[in-house]
Amino acid sequence: MSDHPISSFPLADLAGLPADLQGRISLISDKSGFVPNVFLAMAHRPEELRAFMDYHDALMERPGGLSKAEREMIVVATSAENSCQYCVIAHGAILRIRARNPLIADQVAVNWRKADLTPRERAMLTYAVKVALQAEEVGPEDHAALHAAGFTQDEMWDIGAISAFFGMSNRIANMAAIRPNEAFYLMGRSPLPAKA
Amino acid sequence: MSDHPISSFPLADLAGLPADLQGRISLISDKSGFVPNVFLAMAHRPEELRAFMDYHDALMERPGGLSKAEREMIVVATSAENSCQYCVIAHGAILRIRARNPLIADQVAVNWRKADLTPRERAMLTYAVKVALQAEEVGPEDHAALHAAGFTQDEMWDIGAISAFFGMSNRIANMAAIRPNEAFYLMGRSPLPAKA
Amino acid sequence: MSDHPISSFPLADLAGLPADLQGRISLISDKSGFVPNVFLAMAHRPEELRAFMDYHDALMERPGGLSKAEREMIVVATSAENSCQYCVIAHGAILRIRARNPLIADQVAVNWRKADLTPRERAMLTYAVKVALQAEEVGPEDHAALHAAGFTQDEMWDIGAISAFFGMSNRIANMAAIRPNEAFYLMGRSPLPAKA
Amino acid sequence: MSDHPISSFPLADLAGLPADLQGRISLISDKSGFVPNVFLAMAHRPEELRAFMDYHDALMERPGGLSKAEREMIVVATSAENSCQYCVIAHGAILRIRARNPLIADQVAVNWRKADLTPRERAMLTYAVKVALQAEEVGPEDHAALHAAGFTQDEMWDIGAISAFFGMSNRIANMAAIRPNEAFYLMGRSPLPAKA
Amino acid sequence: MSDHPISSFPLADLAGLPADLQGRISLISDKSGFVPNVFLAMAHRPEELRAFMDYHDALMERPGGLSKAEREMIVVATSAENSCQYCVIAHGAILRIRARNPLIADQVAVNWRKADLTPRERAMLTYAVKVALQAEEVGPEDHAALHAAGFTQDEMWDIGAISAFFGMSNRIANMAAIRPNEAFYLMGRSPLPAKA
Amino acid sequence: MSDHPISSFPLADLAGLPADLQGRISLISDKSGFVPNVFLAMAHRPEELRAFMDYHDALMERPGGLSKAEREMIVVATSAENSCQYCVIAHGAILRIRARNPLIADQVAVNWRKADLTPRERAMLTYAVKVALQAEEVGPEDHAALHAAGFTQDEMWDIGAISAFFGMSNRIANMAAIRPNEAFYLMGRSPLPAKA
Repeated sequence: MSDHPISSFPLADLAGLPADLQGRISLISDKSGFVPNVFLAMAHRPEELRAFMDYHDALMERPGGLSKAEREMIVVATSAENSCQYCVIAHGAILRIRARNPLIADQVAVNWRKADLTPRERAMLTYAVKVALQAEEVGPEDHAALHAAGFTQDEMWDIGAISAFFGMSNRIANMAAIRPNEAFYLMGRSPLPAKA
Repeated sequence: MSDHPISSFPLADLAGLPADLQGRISLISDKSGFVPNVFLAMAHRPEELRAFMDYHDALMERPGGLSKAEREMIVVATSAENSCQYCVIAHGAILRIRARNPLIADQVAVNWRKADLTPRERAMLTYAVKVALQAEEVGPEDHAALHAAGFTQDEMWDIGAISAFFGMSNRIANMAAIRPNEAFYLMGRSPLPAKA
Repeated sequence: MSDHPISSFPLADLAGLPADLQGRISLISDKSGFVPNVFLAMAHRPEELRAFMDYHDALMERPGGLSKAEREMIVVATSAENSCQYCVIAHGAILRIRARNPLIADQVAVNWRKADLTPRERAMLTYAVKVALQAEEVGPEDHAALHAAGFTQDEMWDIGAISAFFGMSNRIANMAAIRPNEAFYLMGRSPLPAKA
Repeated sequence: MSDHPISSFPLADLAGLPADLQGRISLISDKSGFVPNVFLAMAHRPEELRAFMDYHDALMERPGGLSKAEREMIVVATSAENSCQYCVIAHGAILRIRARNPLIADQVAVNWRKADLTPRERAMLTYAVKVALQAEEVGPEDHAALHAAGFTQDEMWDIGAISAFFGMSNRIANMAAIRPNEAFYLMGRSPLPAKA
Repeated sequence: MSDHPISSFPLADLAGLPADLQGRISLISDKSGFVPNVFLAMAHRPEELRAFMDYHDALMERPGGLSKAEREMIVVATSAENSCQYCVIAHGAILRIRARNPLIADQVAVNWRKADLTPRERAMLTYAVKVALQAEEVGPEDHAALHAAGFTQDEMWDIGAISAFFGMSNRIANMAAIRPNEAFYLMGRSPLPAKA
Repeated sequence: MSDHPISSFPLADLAGLPADLQGRISLISDKSGFVPNVFLAMAHRPEELRAFMDYHDALMERPGGLSKAEREMIVVATSAENSCQYCVIAHGAILRIRARNPLIADQVAVNWRKADLTPRERAMLTYAVKVALQAEEVGPEDHAALHAAGFTQDEMWDIGAISAFFGMSNRIANMAAIRPNEAFYLMGRSPLPAKA
């Protein structure tokens, strides 16, 4: 299985990256035990990779607002609508861990409408998916629905901006056929009840 | 998590089912260690359940032709296109086991075009998905493509009929919001390589 | 006109079918005066044919609940959305007879929204067509709408299950290009008023 | 059944129409035995009705080129794609008569790809339906395909212009819910073989 | 730039047209300073051209009802949904002039939902676009919405009929790749404020 | 007209931005004579704005590869498919200037297939639009088509990445209803030939 290419575009050697990017990627691989393939796949474009990481962190590490699990849930739901293998599998793993729920990622990926969601999460994903698929039709009524579900205007921006950012990421991963690391498939699945 | 309903329609007691159905379901639960929820969800309609099981077995247990793994791959790919949570998660588990491949089910479910497929499997899923989504446009050129990929006419029928049967199953599961058993999520994931 | 093939897959001789299937098909042909082509087209797969007939009868001959005409109306509306020539033409004939209405089948087939429907029939077809085309989006609000239109939960299952079953049937008929018998075209058209 | 409205917009009295329009409509009703409802539904706009009839006749009565049956086949196929009840039922009747074929209209209406078509008719409908549904994608390759099927440039214009004109007509009939006369349903169905 | 063809179908010499058509086209070209290419592109079919002009004038020059700017706004919005280059660019110019607004045509063409519209205009375009794209779903609720926005039944017909007529025009222009005159691009853009 | 809001989310004062962002925006506004509204609309999120500008410049100012006009053409075509008013109108202006062609932006925005394109540009936009709308279906055959049209692998990445980046930008602009500056509408339209 290890002979499947990581990308349909050329890979670059991480050692050739600018020091700041090498450092940031080292931190991530130290923590997760491997280098996520998306970094290898974008390394031939260091400036784009840096902007990508900056944008990602600005949205996903931003203090306050949505919980980390909520943000990952948005990523999984919208990436599934965009049929992005890398993002669904990698962020599905992170969602399982952040939400301490081994079932939620697969549920959201196959059909978020049928997942075990709170009303707040349902409102959040309804907006995220509309931004992903029909952003041209977003209007005041959508923001009113989020307001009714308890979201601040700042959180509305987060939901939509995460959907938009991963809309870009999904398209890049699909155009380059970026392959998810095998480690992601099993992460966060364990504290599963012994019996159904 | 155990308080989520198994179906939005009423459940029936298995003990009330005709003996033949009780027997068949016992065989399955003895083998897998639990009663798949789809049987509970359809038990209020014993005649439909019997025809459902007969049709399923006629297609999925038929001697010769497609391999068991190929049949499950068709189920996962078409059920994912139909966003059917029950079928993707339950048959994804079976596909992992039949194919002895812990990655293939998630790959096929998110985007079969990017999965690790042989050319034969790619041709097979191309036809299965066309039957699922645009059956009205199927024509001689589709059968010619399957023939070129080495499929017999009998196997072509299998591919299309499995897609059609699960097209029914997916619609029933979606209308009743049938919930997959939690045991399915982890089945067949284990012989994963230690490191990505 | 008689040189058009009945199916793009091989036909089997009815005389080679198991006795129970020969008997059931004889009953039908005795009643209608001809053997509906769908039986000829599926005869090469006797087990599938038997399950198909069992499932069909469980839904379409079930005592109580929806009227026979209502069930056929569901078949025509959903088969038309799926562009299935065999099912629209064959069940259109049965609908004309069951509903004692020579106009309704063509109306429903071309655009059910513009057909001469009661509010109950309109609610019924709205749900049936949603199950046919967007089952993944079915939710509690759809069942609430049916409830408001006077349908019991048992009848809701019938509507959705008929739509799902013919969703399978439509895909098989389209993949095999099953040709409707010519007799269907004119059945039930006669008690038409002499003048428009 | 006669209490269903002919249009959701107000009807005008034919007697109030300008003499030329009254004359033209009389000729038609003398020939067919009734006044087609489309004239009643458009009579409140005499200038639009006159332009409509002029345009219709320029395309449908034009000497040379496509046969009358071919023109009606284009109308039925594209009106079916546009789900226009009036046009499918009224022109389906005319197609049956012009083609001396009691089956062809229903076949084309449900799924023209599965109808009993010659290769020439298939090429013709492929283009007509593309103009109806994806005109923005029409390009030189489409005209090359028609040329290869033996159509002159003049006939290509006819095919596309008939599709475009009935695209207008379909939209007007759908917005006003114009009801087809009951007489259309049975016209041209008779010389059906005695037995299927 | 002048070597791009005006149509993919043959052009006819205007001098060969019947006198009435020559006269009408002269009036237009005298007023606008050039002969709009649509006339050149349709001149090979004088009867169709005459009916086209008659229908156009019946809808667009009709006394009373919608303002001239409103009618052109319908043309631009629906022609943009149909991706018709000729109609968006030519009628965009006329809309800028009629509405005395240099911004509105581009806004409506790119996304009418985000344009600077009054509630009345928004209701009008909602209906016009529904007739353009989903006429088969138009029903009483759409007319009720127009009524609530202050439109008479006569004006509703105008909105829908203009959408339908340009639906035809868009298809003809797209099938023949009719090229807009270059003069249209700049018309009505001038009284723009000096600074943003 | 000046009372239309620039965004449906709160605007931030540019004076409150970090110095590096103030400097970069000053450079742009000095050059164009105004501050593009997108900066005002994103100023409440300085980190996102910085990453946005970095990513934009990495793709749009990158030395070598696609010409500046080609890059803007990709932006206009994909933003039009996404119905993004801000991007079509702002980048339409830049495209007119970069390509020294007052017609091309409107042509590409309404229907890029009918625009005055070279075969190279047509291949480029075919891929860009596929990444925008169906990235999940991108495969080797798409890259082979670009190769055949003379594009290097590096340029293929540029085309797809620009489409993906503006896919994000379009979604943000649509969710916040970001209004284009009025100055963009007229930029680059002038050296228009005196007569069509």
